Amino acid sequence: MPSVFLEEIDAQSYASYVSRTDSTVIIPTGATEQHGPHMPLGVDAMLSKAIAGQLAQRTGALVAPVFSYGYKSQPRSGGGNHRVGTTSLGASTLISKIEEVAASFMAQGFKNVVVLNGHFENYQFLYEGLDKAVASSLQAGSTSRAVLMSYWDFVDEQTLEQVFPEGFLGWDIEHGGVLETSLMLLLHPELVRMDRVVDHPPAELTSYDVFPEDPARTPASGCLSSARNATAARGQLLLDAVTSALGAALGQELNLSSQMVEVE
Amino acid sequence: MPSVFLEEIDAQSYASYVSRTDSTVIIPTGATEQHGPHMPLGVDAMLSKAIAGQLAQRTGALVAPVFSYGYKSQPRSGGGNHRVGTTSLGASTLISKIEEVAASFMAQGFKNVVVLNGHFENYQFLYEGLDKAVASSLQAGSTSRAVLMSYWDFVDEQTLEQVFPEGFLGWDIEHGGVLETSLMLLLHPELVRMDRVVDHPPAELTSYDVFPEDPARTPASGCLSSARNATAARGQLLLDAVTSALGAALGQELNLSSQMVEVE
Amino acid sequence: MPSVFLEEIDAQSYASYVSRTDSTVIIPTGATEQHGPHMPLGVDAMLSKAIAGQLAQRTGALVAPVFSYGYKSQPRSGGGNHRVGTTSLGASTLISKIEEVAASFMAQGFKNVVVLNGHFENYQFLYEGLDKAVASSLQAGSTSRAVLMSYWDFVDEQTLEQVFPEGFLGWDIEHGGVLETSLMLLLHPELVRMDRVVDHPPAELTSYDVFPEDPARTPASGCLSSARNATAARGQLLLDAVTSALGAALGQELNLSSQMVEVE
Amino acid sequence: MPSVFLEEIDAQSYASYVSRTDSTVIIPTGATEQHGPHMPLGVDAMLSKAIAGQLAQRTGALVAPVFSYGYKSQPRSGGGNHRVGTTSLGASTLISKIEEVAASFMAQGFKNVVVLNGHFENYQFLYEGLDKAVASSLQAGSTSRAVLMSYWDFVDEQTLEQVFPEGFLGWDIEHGGVLETSLMLLLHPELVRMDRVVDHPPAELTSYDVFPEDPARTPASGCLSSARNATAARGQLLLDAVTSALGAALGQELNLSSQMVEVE
Amino acid sequence: MPSVFLEEIDAQSYASYVSRTDSTVIIPTGATEQHGPHMPLGVDAMLSKAIAGQLAQRTGALVAPVFSYGYKSQPRSGGGNHRVGTTSLGASTLISKIEEVAASFMAQGFKNVVVLNGHFENYQFLYEGLDKAVASSLQAGSTSRAVLMSYWDFVDEQTLEQVFPEGFLGWDIEHGGVLETSLMLLLHPELVRMDRVVDHPPAELTSYDVFPEDPARTPASGCLSSARNATAARGQLLLDAVTSALGAALGQELNLSSQMVEVE
Amino acid sequence: MPSVFLEEIDAQSYASYVSRTDSTVIIPTGATEQHGPHMPLGVDAMLSKAIAGQLAQRTGALVAPVFSYGYKSQPRSGGGNHRVGTTSLGASTLISKIEEVAASFMAQGFKNVVVLNGHFENYQFLYEGLDKAVASSLQAGSTSRAVLMSYWDFVDEQTLEQVFPEGFLGWDIEHGGVLETSLMLLLHPELVRMDRVVDHPPAELTSYDVFPEDPARTPASGCLSSARNATAARGQLLLDAVTSALGAALGQELNLSSQMVEVE
Repeated sequence: MPSVFLEEIDAQSYASYVSRTDSTVIIPTGATEQHGPHMPLGVDAMLSKAIAGQLAQRTGALVAPVFSYGYKSQPRSGGGNHRVGTTSLGASTLISKIEEVAASFMAQGFKNVVVLNGHFENYQFLYEGLDKAVASSLQAGSTSRAVLMSYWDFVDEQTLEQVFPEGFLGWDIEHGGVLETSLMLLLHPELVRMDRVVDHPPAELTSYDVFPEDPARTPASGCLSSARNATAARGQLLLDAVTSALGAALGQELNLSSQMVEVE
Repeated sequence: MPSVFLEEIDAQSYASYVSRTDSTVIIPTGATEQHGPHMPLGVDAMLSKAIAGQLAQRTGALVAPVFSYGYKSQPRSGGGNHRVGTTSLGASTLISKIEEVAASFMAQGFKNVVVLNGHFENYQFLYEGLDKAVASSLQAGSTSRAVLMSYWDFVDEQTLEQVFPEGFLGWDIEHGGVLETSLMLLLHPELVRMDRVVDHPPAELTSYDVFPEDPARTPASGCLSSARNATAARGQLLLDAVTSALGAALGQELNLSSQMVEVE
Repeated sequence: MPSVFLEEIDAQSYASYVSRTDSTVIIPTGATEQHGPHMPLGVDAMLSKAIAGQLAQRTGALVAPVFSYGYKSQPRSGGGNHRVGTTSLGASTLISKIEEVAASFMAQGFKNVVVLNGHFENYQFLYEGLDKAVASSLQAGSTSRAVLMSYWDFVDEQTLEQVFPEGFLGWDIEHGGVLETSLMLLLHPELVRMDRVVDHPPAELTSYDVFPEDPARTPASGCLSSARNATAARGQLLLDAVTSALGAALGQELNLSSQMVEVE
Repeated sequence: MPSVFLEEIDAQSYASYVSRTDSTVIIPTGATEQHGPHMPLGVDAMLSKAIAGQLAQRTGALVAPVFSYGYKSQPRSGGGNHRVGTTSLGASTLISKIEEVAASFMAQGFKNVVVLNGHFENYQFLYEGLDKAVASSLQAGSTSRAVLMSYWDFVDEQTLEQVFPEGFLGWDIEHGGVLETSLMLLLHPELVRMDRVVDHPPAELTSYDVFPEDPARTPASGCLSSARNATAARGQLLLDAVTSALGAALGQELNLSSQMVEVE
Repeated sequence: MPSVFLEEIDAQSYASYVSRTDSTVIIPTGATEQHGPHMPLGVDAMLSKAIAGQLAQRTGALVAPVFSYGYKSQPRSGGGNHRVGTTSLGASTLISKIEEVAASFMAQGFKNVVVLNGHFENYQFLYEGLDKAVASSLQAGSTSRAVLMSYWDFVDEQTLEQVFPEGFLGWDIEHGGVLETSLMLLLHPELVRMDRVVDHPPAELTSYDVFPEDPARTPASGCLSSARNATAARGQLLLDAVTSALGAALGQELNLSSQMVEVE
Repeated sequence: MPSVFLEEIDAQSYASYVSRTDSTVIIPTGATEQHGPHMPLGVDAMLSKAIAGQLAQRTGALVAPVFSYGYKSQPRSGGGNHRVGTTSLGASTLISKIEEVAASFMAQGFKNVVVLNGHFENYQFLYEGLDKAVASSLQAGSTSRAVLMSYWDFVDEQTLEQVFPEGFLGWDIEHGGVLETSLMLLLHPELVRMDRVVDHPPAELTSYDVFPEDPARTPASGCLSSARNATAARGQLLLDAVTSALGAALGQELNLSSQMVEVE
């Protein structure tokens, strides 16, 4: 197999792969969303795609085209949907999209469909879409299974301490912070401008949401915490920890043999 | 005003209230969901309605009829939607329902619409519905605002330590546990059977979801942790803490004067 | 069984009940709607829930949480949706809600789903939702059945003459009139203020609808006829007649044994 | 104007008409539904179109293309949707269709949109669609109005007595009965075969609906009463009464001048 | 069978026909759309219905009620949806309508459903609706098939040369041109006013679409080319060629025996 | 501006660009679809993205993340949706997606939204979505405009003759043929395997569609014509012709100054 990214694979190789008894497709999901002055709009899509690629290498899976647009950015996790640079889908569209794409892969014969989420706000809508897709597939006689996972949920305590020696304050303020910036410095360094990193204290988020959104509620920078401590080395720690834990979970859950995919 | 519950108020009293400059309606949202062998299916609706009632007393608001049906129960927070006793709505229906109800209240003249959530899985769908309702209202010239809050997000650290002297393990395993049972012992003691409380260790939840759901993943009891330490006294601590913090947040956010609603 | 209302029942008792060969759930549906100056907004929900409770006692059924919000009030039967105090759902939401709730009960094993309607305008939308739910269930192999009924359709001629000795003018003008007020005087007397009952002649309704609604078309009181002749005694006559006739219909249609539900 | 039917009018004549201050379009709505062995499937569409044509002549209105497909036939008014020959739309499609068509006419400049219904089951769904169309038009600045009417609601008592000298038993059993057959004998005699008219007693309809439908509940003939007393003369009485009353209602409600439309 | 148009057939004759092993229903689809100053708004519906009628005679099929409203007129094929006289459906409604109507015919037992399109813009939406209807029917065990065809795609080269001896410039500019006008002169001559035919050069259409539509982009006449060379004789050539080719395609594809439908 | 692809741009640079009076975003739309044994599944997305990039360089526009999933592949233009390797969206999802993305860009301040289509079957659904997005934006006071174009519609006659010296047989059979293969040889040569190019005659396509699809109708290879004459040089001819013509059309239609976007 010349690539784990199925957009780069021809239909014959694809058909051959799908017929395997452990055929697995990973669908990375991101967003088009501002990530502060130092990172590009495509961070969530780039990271979920890159991690999916590494996970596919480990588990013998293929990677579907990334979902580049995600659910509306929310102030408590991403700065808010009102910001220039953030272009989102509504709930109904995201639900239908994952439902149709997952159902299509199952109908074509994939035994496992894995959705690897890279944008916090997507999760519940991906859940609904997968739930509907699998219910329909079951009714049509399929035995395919689906797994939904967000990559940051697989960072272990030890890695957290190494990456945040100053103390970890929660995933909710990591939008545009150390986690994402470190991974970008590792995977797409040419798209990060550390000279522009903000240096303000972590955002103090409310425990509720207000409509219409109040732009004054989150930092003008668009970052919920500072990325000044981000480094590519920390990115490597995170990437290793995440792909290892994701691979272990999929291996156990789906009985993936973890053999590498070979070119036919 | 003879009651804070608007189903018990006549249209004239209601109209008089709505014309106030700080008219506020609180919409409690729950679910119909199994809560173990010791509590009834309506826990989420009962608790959100009761807390909304107390919050309304504090802030001079009215309470709308509770949403008795919620989004699908998920294994990582409620045991799962496959369990007998759990009857849920899909995403689209819940989104439309809150959108239409909130928009109607704003169109009738309410200055503030507060959604008080009592079922974890509802949150993102309530968010989408409120976002759409407020966007439409804004376009139609309304200046009404909306707030979305889940009551457990307002339990402070000190109360947590008092209620969970043995150590707090996270909201995700509180389904059917000490929090909900203590509140029910306080508010609806006749519906709790402490002799049936389970005594198994907290559920070890995965950091991902699998479709179709694997029933073996969560305890057969339907509780994600034991409620054996629940007491009405702890329920009182929780209720006081939550209503106080909710009231403070609304007071600050919406400039509510906190005067009591008077019978006309 | 400690209660016929399933929100008050635990999951184990519920599961035990559902496994019966005649397990039946009654879903009461009402509205949040102005009912004149003398009655509260929740009349339709309260009455359908109360009648469902009595019907459940008779037939050994359970009662699901009431639908508190209904389809838009229409001028020819409820005064109109423009009135302050009336908060409604659109057709699509109501259809989806009953479809999903009914389908869920059938999937859990209920042999019979009964929808007991208490708001005139709901009927056709409940019909559509039930029709879709049963069609899906049939296709999935279920043999469950559903029944849709509005309670006033079960008042017999003799009772009509007793309740309306002055002459019965039709159900369409009974919004806020003798029927509903008598039942409320019987079931929730503390929520009725007979000193505020209007005393105008019955509304003269057109035989067509106009959009946008013309508020001048229906009485400013919100009542389509006067409730001055309402009494709790008439409420008892109505309640007895209705529950008896409903029970007979269900007994014949669904072969319900009418034995009382026992506490386990 | 060469015709009142707008499908037969050219765009220039149409544009000229729409610019009038009382421009009115009547949309007839029917169904494709079995009407017993003696009448064709298109009765509802044919009658609503014909009556709309006569009403247009009276009021100076135009007639839009008829809706040939209607909401599902129901056992209590049309025999049921399971019968061969009955092809129906679901609620959502019918609502969207009338909403879009009515909104388009209002956007093009019609001052009045009249929906003339000829299939009982359509009414509530037409109501919802018109309600949404007019709400949108209002928000876009339009002052157009809409009226919804079913033609049989305009038969007066005196006509009823003349048409049903044997006694009138209610509109619900008139499916395939004297009303529709008489009108068809007048308007489309070549499509009626009186030698095939059934002669069974009126159907005894239940006061509730059952799902799935029980075909044994309604007569195998598909008629809910016998049309043996139908005559073209009675059809003429009905047509005169209905068009006269409809015209009077529109004249009063919409201030139509009732001048005849002239060919330009 | 007294007629090939099923609205003119009674339910018994219909049922008898449907039980045939080659039962076929043709659904003609048109639009309500301006066709220049010389032709009426109903051209697309009239032509598709008339051609469907002739095709039914040839193939022993029945014709369903025509879809009188179509998808939005587009500037590159029909002048544009902004023109007065053009009343259209959105994509969702048209998709749902054909899906429900086609699925209903298949459920009733038709072996073949043919959609004969007469409005260019409809095609892709009819495709989606048929695709969904057939997928559902397959899943429910049906073996019915569907065919989608636009009548102008069946004009052969030789006929084109005869009808357009001056040179054929493409179907896209035929809106209100020689094709449609010739067919109307043949089939509905009383609705064509050749004295009003425009005489401007063919519209020069762009190879892209612009939103909002620019009315200056297409001729003010509403015709994309002149119909001055239209004649009933050319209409006959077209009608013969089209019905012959359509019949041949259906005969081959669906194994229709082409025997004429007989009156029972 | 460091890149024309907005996923690679930070929010500040993006905001600065959007405030220009000619700010333009190009949304490329493709599909995930088999393209024969010699090309990968992502051809449509890759080509539309690459052409959009070149067009952006010419016109000073930005390029939004490509739509990697498109409408169902159809037999008459892409081989059909039943083929392994083809994963598609339904009409409703694609319509909603382009509607929401385009509306978001307009709300953020883009003066022009250009959709550059690279998958034939997408066009009508993109049209509907753009039509709705622009209608909403207009109603909200925006003056933004949108353009919809498919790149192959901009190949001029002269280029056609150079690229197809053997004769051009129509765009419909170019799926996996000379056009796409030549462009891929130019833009992504590492993903093309010319040794696997099929050498069968062009597919003979029917002038209608059949449901369910008949796989025997199109070549087993998945290509509708042979790409044996494809070369990178022909790809260059096509790319130059297309970007030049697209640029000219946008320049004229949108008054784009065609100055290059500068890095800030």
